[in-house]
Amino acid sequence: MNDSAVLLIDCPDRKGLVARVSSLLYERGANILHADQHQDHDLVLFFMRVEWALNGTGNGEETGPERFDLEGFKAAFAPMAAELGMRWKLSYSGRLPRVALFCSQYLHCMADLLHRWRTGELLCEIPLILSNHKDVERLAAFYGIPFEYSAVTAEGRTEAEARQLQMLESAGVDLVVLARYMQILSPDFVARYPASIINVHHSFLPAFTGAKPYHAAHARGVKLIGATSHYVTDLLDDGPIIEQDVARISHRDQVEDLVARGRDLERIVLSRAVRWHLDRRILCYGNKTVVFD
Amino acid sequence: MNDSAVLLIDCPDRKGLVARVSSLLYERGANILHADQHQDHDLVLFFMRVEWALNGTGNGEETGPERFDLEGFKAAFAPMAAELGMRWKLSYSGRLPRVALFCSQYLHCMADLLHRWRTGELLCEIPLILSNHKDVERLAAFYGIPFEYSAVTAEGRTEAEARQLQMLESAGVDLVVLARYMQILSPDFVARYPASIINVHHSFLPAFTGAKPYHAAHARGVKLIGATSHYVTDLLDDGPIIEQDVARISHRDQVEDLVARGRDLERIVLSRAVRWHLDRRILCYGNKTVVFD
Amino acid sequence: MNDSAVLLIDCPDRKGLVARVSSLLYERGANILHADQHQDHDLVLFFMRVEWALNGTGNGEETGPERFDLEGFKAAFAPMAAELGMRWKLSYSGRLPRVALFCSQYLHCMADLLHRWRTGELLCEIPLILSNHKDVERLAAFYGIPFEYSAVTAEGRTEAEARQLQMLESAGVDLVVLARYMQILSPDFVARYPASIINVHHSFLPAFTGAKPYHAAHARGVKLIGATSHYVTDLLDDGPIIEQDVARISHRDQVEDLVARGRDLERIVLSRAVRWHLDRRILCYGNKTVVFD
Amino acid sequence: MNDSAVLLIDCPDRKGLVARVSSLLYERGANILHADQHQDHDLVLFFMRVEWALNGTGNGEETGPERFDLEGFKAAFAPMAAELGMRWKLSYSGRLPRVALFCSQYLHCMADLLHRWRTGELLCEIPLILSNHKDVERLAAFYGIPFEYSAVTAEGRTEAEARQLQMLESAGVDLVVLARYMQILSPDFVARYPASIINVHHSFLPAFTGAKPYHAAHARGVKLIGATSHYVTDLLDDGPIIEQDVARISHRDQVEDLVARGRDLERIVLSRAVRWHLDRRILCYGNKTVVFD
Repeated sequence: MNDSAVLLIDCPDRKGLVARVSSLLYERGANILHADQHQDHDLVLFFMRVEWALNGTGNGEETGPERFDLEGFKAAFAPMAAELGMRWKLSYSGRLPRVALFCSQYLHCMADLLHRWRTGELLCEIPLILSNHKDVERLAAFYGIPFEYSAVTAEGRTEAEARQLQMLESAGVDLVVLARYMQILSPDFVARYPASIINVHHSFLPAFTGAKPYHAAHARGVKLIGATSHYVTDLLDDGPIIEQDVARISHRDQVEDLVARGRDLERIVLSRAVRWHLDRRILCYGNKTVVFD
Repeated sequence: MNDSAVLLIDCPDRKGLVARVSSLLYERGANILHADQHQDHDLVLFFMRVEWALNGTGNGEETGPERFDLEGFKAAFAPMAAELGMRWKLSYSGRLPRVALFCSQYLHCMADLLHRWRTGELLCEIPLILSNHKDVERLAAFYGIPFEYSAVTAEGRTEAEARQLQMLESAGVDLVVLARYMQILSPDFVARYPASIINVHHSFLPAFTGAKPYHAAHARGVKLIGATSHYVTDLLDDGPIIEQDVARISHRDQVEDLVARGRDLERIVLSRAVRWHLDRRILCYGNKTVVFD
Repeated sequence: MNDSAVLLIDCPDRKGLVARVSSLLYERGANILHADQHQDHDLVLFFMRVEWALNGTGNGEETGPERFDLEGFKAAFAPMAAELGMRWKLSYSGRLPRVALFCSQYLHCMADLLHRWRTGELLCEIPLILSNHKDVERLAAFYGIPFEYSAVTAEGRTEAEARQLQMLESAGVDLVVLARYMQILSPDFVARYPASIINVHHSFLPAFTGAKPYHAAHARGVKLIGATSHYVTDLLDDGPIIEQDVARISHRDQVEDLVARGRDLERIVLSRAVRWHLDRRILCYGNKTVVFD
Repeated sequence: MNDSAVLLIDCPDRKGLVARVSSLLYERGANILHADQHQDHDLVLFFMRVEWALNGTGNGEETGPERFDLEGFKAAFAPMAAELGMRWKLSYSGRLPRVALFCSQYLHCMADLLHRWRTGELLCEIPLILSNHKDVERLAAFYGIPFEYSAVTAEGRTEAEARQLQMLESAGVDLVVLARYMQILSPDFVARYPASIINVHHSFLPAFTGAKPYHAAHARGVKLIGATSHYVTDLLDDGPIIEQDVARISHRDQVEDLVARGRDLERIVLSRAVRWHLDRRILCYGNKTVVFD
């Protein structure tokens, strides 16, 4: 991992935005590692992601032993951002994001995320695994992660969610990942984590929303099945899409074959979404995402 | 091309179907080139495609100079098929299927099909190109194919379709290909060519049915776009799917980029559907297809 | 899983092979679940895979409570097979194949196979995990599988392999899976398990054989990276290919990005190869495979 | 098409490059439409592509009716570029690149490129089609493009190439596209068009270089076939790769099936390479390409 800072910006588009941001970074001695911009010409919006070294060991000229002065930069950047109507988020690699994983009975996504985390592919802390199924406890223990059992019934959802939110808060969680978690979150819960709850849906959205998408795909006779990772919003299966992938099937495949092939898709689209979120590559706007690569 | 016959069968599944069909062919000296079966275990249905040489020069033992006796086989097979409740279709390479191509203003699928036909990839006759746009006439002339201009207005559709059906009949057409033809066919028209009208829809069905699917895909923020070829039925964009494919897009792609990338998908899924239909690889049942490979 | 038998056949192609095999099965009351054939017209070879129910509860007519008489079928089939020059293998679901997993320091393939096995995707026994790295022991223990540490040095390979072969024999192993096992097996070892050792190579073979294929791919500037699963033969990276897949990369991807993306490819192509082998879908001939789908 | 200018830069990486280029553009009133950078951290190289509006109608603030002063910008940029060791290329949409298409007997790539050009997908002039086969003349005539027949024999290559180079020069050609042109160009010819000759090779390079790659792929038993577009250099099939794609095949596919499927791949990878080159999205360095998206 780079010892670096990442600045994400979105604002109304106008001339000179790149010049002003990059000049400020240059003046303060930043060693830019990656920079990427995007403009939505229809909506006249500007998006930018810029990452720079904090320890002066990036490419280009040497800056000596001092570290980049992040607080000083912030103080200089804030008024410019206000003037230009920017929404922005500055993060740095010194603090790992804290992630909670929720799941139900299917553990393939959970097991996949944990293995990727263990091998360093996902740079985060995982202070909490929560499930309405007790089977996952053994897996959590293998990876040394605290497990919470949380049964949710229709009538007890409000209370259950209150307890869950408390757990998230006391664990200092930044991101909730629904790794095939079969409970629907209330609007109140969702509102507490805007653009910070990632779900995987086992279809190529917007086709086959709702329950049993593999059955629906089989009934319709499609020739490809898909999976979609997205941020959770109030509307079920309707949040901003982060990643999608598909696999070819044929008339020989029964529903259980689709389920098996789909597991691979789900693992891949969910793990990519989590990684990109952790790398601060994603900006949400409206009901869409910009994913810088 | 093989000098061969193809038998397509579907019937209720029961024991011994492969044995009975293959034994009859063996007794009559057939040199089987390809054989494929499929069972739908849920619906207890059996599907079979078998292709054999007509000229005795296939692999295996020599059969001498005589040709396979197709009429004799038919006479022997028909009672067995009746006994077993088979629907079947016997075709042979001596008679090329006759195809009519319909299009509107976008010519990429039309141009693609014609080039593939010229180079021998599509084994058929093309006695008719029909369009409500006159621009296609020059392209038709380049390939030496009769062109008919057919304007269709809301009030004049019945009459226009009557003329079109007459043209199809006098041209002896077996298959109608809608190569981005923007008119909706009436149920009467569709009923005349059951499982014999192939359309391409510029989305990954069942997502984004109806008009302007690329606009809808862009608005939804999907990360893959698709195209679908299918047989036309009474319900718009709802017939049995033959082939689908997708391409990756990103936040950088505007609607016109989706349109451009989609053209490649449309060409590919439509041309595959036409080729497989011409090769008698497709069986329809319910609202689905079996595509033997 | 079906309670079923699978017969794999290859032999010189000639007329009537399907008829004779399917008729014999029909006479003995078999309920065929799947049947697939393939002919190599150039080499005049015939390949067949047929699977039938053993318990009389398949589709089609009921056969009553008796089980299919496998020994009786074998006795009737053997002379026919001899007459027709068939190589054949009959297996049935009552006996699970026994698989040994070998790995070195990279555990992503191992962890993936074990999770798939636990969830029922891979129908086999796993009596042995062997590695020249001790880290895998904890993972083996989590899944309750005996672990053997086996250090291999250049000078001690003969002895080490002798011990390994003994372990395989006493564990009754049918299939050895090299899940990123970094040691080269001797020709003697390979000869003991013909078409029964599956390896994954982290490139799109035949490109980038040998060590460090991701470095080589990065140096060459390819736009897709791949992975290949194959049976092991005497020639390194040259055995019959079972499955391959690729992923798109760009100029932004460094070697470590290729390694990370490649891990997903490796998991997928290796797990597919193992599943297909366990499902008896693969026939080897020459340096190629037939994979029935 | 945008009325725009595109600046491509590569130079040694150092701090402040983005700031200096974007500030200069901002000072001179440029309305940036797209900007993209890349750094090769290993080689300490910097790459940039920036596109801006020339007519003052881009997004952001209005600049009034005046056009961007391209000559003034050039005069101001040149000394900065010299100081920073930049190689750079400034082009603008007012002048369409001029492209020559070469082919031999297979016309699928040629027909595809011409259709894309006609429909506005490829923004260029095509003043010349050249072939050692006369069949292409009719196709050239359909699109109204001058055709030159140029037979090349082993002993007459020097003379033939001299005539070809003269044709290219008098047609003012910027880019030569080898659309399945089966002649090898001499090093002298290649040296005249550095990074300006695009070829398509019908394999997934570096696998199966040389002649008959589909035969080689079939013999090796691969499960995917590919195609590659690349700039031509002195070494056969070894130039910087621009684009690659693959398609899945199976044991059922004979060499002629690979050839047919491969035609679709060839069309796609070649047309993408040509479009990206025309859009000035490609930078070559060493034996690799940066393709900005």
